[in-house]
This record gives sequence, C-alpha cells and structure tokens, in this order.
Amino acid sequence: MEECSMFRPNFEKGGGLIRAVAQDAVSLTVLMDAYMNEEAFNETVRTGQVVYFSRSKGKLWRKGEESGNMQIVRDIRVNCYTDSTLILAEQVGGAACHEGYPTCYYRHLANGELVLIEERVFDPSLIYKKGE
Amino acid sequence: MEECSMFRPNFEKGGGLIRAVAQDAVSLTVLMDAYMNEEAFNETVRTGQVVYFSRSKGKLWRKGEESGNMQIVRDIRVNCYTDSTLILAEQVGGAACHEGYPTCYYRHLANGELVLIEERVFDPSLIYKKGE
Repeated sequence: MEECSMFRPNFEKGGGLIRAVAQDAVSLTVLMDAYMNEEAFNETVRTGQVVYFSRSKGKLWRKGEESGNMQIVRDIRVNCYTDSTLILAEQVGGAACHEGYPTCYYRHLANGELVLIEERVFDPSLIYKKGE
Repeated sequence: MEECSMFRPNFEKGGGLIRAVAQDAVSLTVLMDAYMNEEAFNETVRTGQVVYFSRSKGKLWRKGEESGNMQIVRDIRVNCYTDSTLILAEQVGGAACHEGYPTCYYRHLANGELVLIEERVFDPSLIYKKGE
C-alpha cells in the first residue's frame, strides 16, 4: 500500500470544477478569475503555465495559446475549503483579458453605472479569429 | 416609459449567482472569493458592506455578522462577462477567513503538498458557535 499525501483540490463540490483567481505576482493586480477541472489544475502544476477549463467551450483553455498572453505560475495558493485557488502569475504581454485590457476587471461601478478604468493594450479584433 | 441604464450583473449565467473576489484595498492581498446572488449584490452596494450568498446555507451571508470581521467596500469592479466582481475592501479585524487566518488562501502548494503561509489572527472555536 502506497502512502499518498499529495494535495488534491475538492473538485466534487463545484461539479468537477474549482475556481481559480489569477493575480499578478509583482503588482498584485487581480487579473481574472475562471475555472479549472482536475486536468486543467494538473496541467497548470505540470507545465508551470496557467491552464483553465472553458465552460463555454467545454474543454481545456491554455491561457494565451492564441493571443500569446500566457500566465507563468509563480505560486499556487489554496483556500480554506480547497475549492478555490489563487494563482500568483507573471502575465506575459501585459494583458489578461480577451477584450484587450490588462485585467478582466477593467470597469468599476460608479453611481450604478459601469465606468472604464483601464486602457486597451491590444485590439482583440486583430488577435482572435472570428467567433472566438 | 422609464429609461434604465443602471448596471445589473449577469446572474443568469451562473444559475442566479455571480462570483465575488474580495481584495484588501490597501495591501492588495486577495482575501477570499465567494458568490453573490442579486439580493447580496444589491445589499453590498446599498450598505457599503460586503454581503455574499452562502450556497451551503442557502441564504444571505453578511460577512462579519458573527465574527465582527466585516468588509467595508472601497470599490466594486466588474469583469468582461459581468459574471464576476472584484471588491476592493477594508477588512475589519484583519482576518477574512472563518478559520482565523488573514485570508482564505493561507496555504500554498509546495512539491504537491499544502504548506501553511499565514498565522492565525483568532481562534475560530472562540468566535463561532458550534456547527457554524
């Protein structure tokens, strides 16, 4: 019998998924949040680059595979319920968001309306193929 | 007919819930992540204190109502899909986690094992009633 103390997140609680918050390891800016299934989590650990699970596409989403804006893992933190991870990462290209902004949280709420607080780093129409 | 341009997050996508990441407004430490339903989001905006929705208890969860460790809203940011918010907050009591740690991400992954990286601020057995 082999002893196994390796950490495994609680995927059952979220129907096979855990949450993953990506934070810039240097500036501490929160870049985005998304989901990982077990394969995405294992691939993130194995490759050192962040891999999410795309719920809309139903498959692994290797962050930056199309835009080149991958996220290099610096540290992986785990929450109290082991159903969420905080990934400290280096954001290649300076833009985490598919809309071309540095982070996905590029708007804030002001008097009940959404107001832009970041500037675009790239034009998404030049990066992504139509329909993606 | 009344014109309504007020922002409303996309609750439908997450089955009535959006994700909410809380970040310390000063240190930029990520404190926790959880969920909000529409009532929790509206109460967060209205009261200026973070209110989540507890999936396990099936009801509003006014952060700090029992421990006193509430989160005072400094800014609310919204992601590209409007299905996740980033709440910049002041963490009263210096501890966001019900386990007594400053953040819920008090462990990190080292060689496949979970290693403690924060120190307890309070003893949860002295704060929470049994079974909560």
